[in-house]
Amino acid sequence: MSFTKSVDTKKKLLLNQSANILTMLNLGSGSMALILIMKGHASLAAGLIFLAAICDMYDGKVARNLNISSDFGKQLDSLADLISFGVAPALLIYQSILFQYSIAGILLTVMYILCGAIRLARFNVTTFTGNFQGLPIPAAGCLLALFFLMKFYIPSVFFMFILLGLSVLMIGTFKVKKI
Amino acid sequence: MSFTKSVDTKKKLLLNQSANILTMLNLGSGSMALILIMKGHASLAAGLIFLAAICDMYDGKVARNLNISSDFGKQLDSLADLISFGVAPALLIYQSILFQYSIAGILLTVMYILCGAIRLARFNVTTFTGNFQGLPIPAAGCLLALFFLMKFYIPSVFFMFILLGLSVLMIGTFKVKKI
Repeated sequence: MSFTKSVDTKKKLLLNQSANILTMLNLGSGSMALILIMKGHASLAAGLIFLAAICDMYDGKVARNLNISSDFGKQLDSLADLISFGVAPALLIYQSILFQYSIAGILLTVMYILCGAIRLARFNVTTFTGNFQGLPIPAAGCLLALFFLMKFYIPSVFFMFILLGLSVLMIGTFKVKKI
Repeated sequence: MSFTKSVDTKKKLLLNQSANILTMLNLGSGSMALILIMKGHASLAAGLIFLAAICDMYDGKVARNLNISSDFGKQLDSLADLISFGVAPALLIYQSILFQYSIAGILLTVMYILCGAIRLARFNVTTFTGNFQGLPIPAAGCLLALFFLMKFYIPSVFFMFILLGLSVLMIGTFKVKKI
């Protein structure tokens, strides 16, 4: 009986933390993607960015459905998003393509990360009314990973404009409906 | 007169944003450090982590002294800290030393980043009473950068324990007095 109780408690604890576990998987995938980029496995890293996006899609849903949303979870989510959809895709594009543009490539990479952080910080202090303000960073990160996979069909110089465009769209003040 | 007024307005705007500008410099330094790590300039990257720490030391002080603290600034600060003192030092140690330990090196690197994110998320949802709970991530990041600079005097395998130790210390519940 005591054993059943202990299993039940552990199950409840796991269920309570399920959304945060998904967020940690998002962050873990993003961190692994960074290591793979450094090791030269860029396509695998792009795959991990998509995996992070899947985890990110479900952590909020799980939290709402199980009624276990928490401020801690929201903070963790933003931190994970900056790694998985800010730093990882920016470095993926830099390491594979933009490295050839010297200072311009570096500046655009850093700018994308800065704009992603501004987007996330603004989102965290704004009351959510069903619409996002500016392009959400997971969308920007997935687009970058997708463009990376299509890199043989896109002239290299276009990636500078893609990075610039996504940076501007993230800090834009237009409304985007939540899917 | 109109020109003086315009200059005054711009000066005021710059002053109001001075703390956030320092936070952006922190994040910019951390992002640049990541690029330098990928390019193999590890010592320069360590220098940028220290520069990020200096910016991080002053952004809060400037915000309090000028009475311009904001929730947006606090959010931006945490996001910057995760890059500059979480991701950058972890990848610095991985790329220079821990890469030789295969899966163990990867797991410890990812764990350090995860623990850093947990530390930051917990801090953001806790009312600050003058004491930090657990080792602050800027201290952990600077220690890692310092150990990296002393790497010729430290056996490589010790870096696994250093990463593990700092990870545990960050998520610990002991109190650390703010300097």
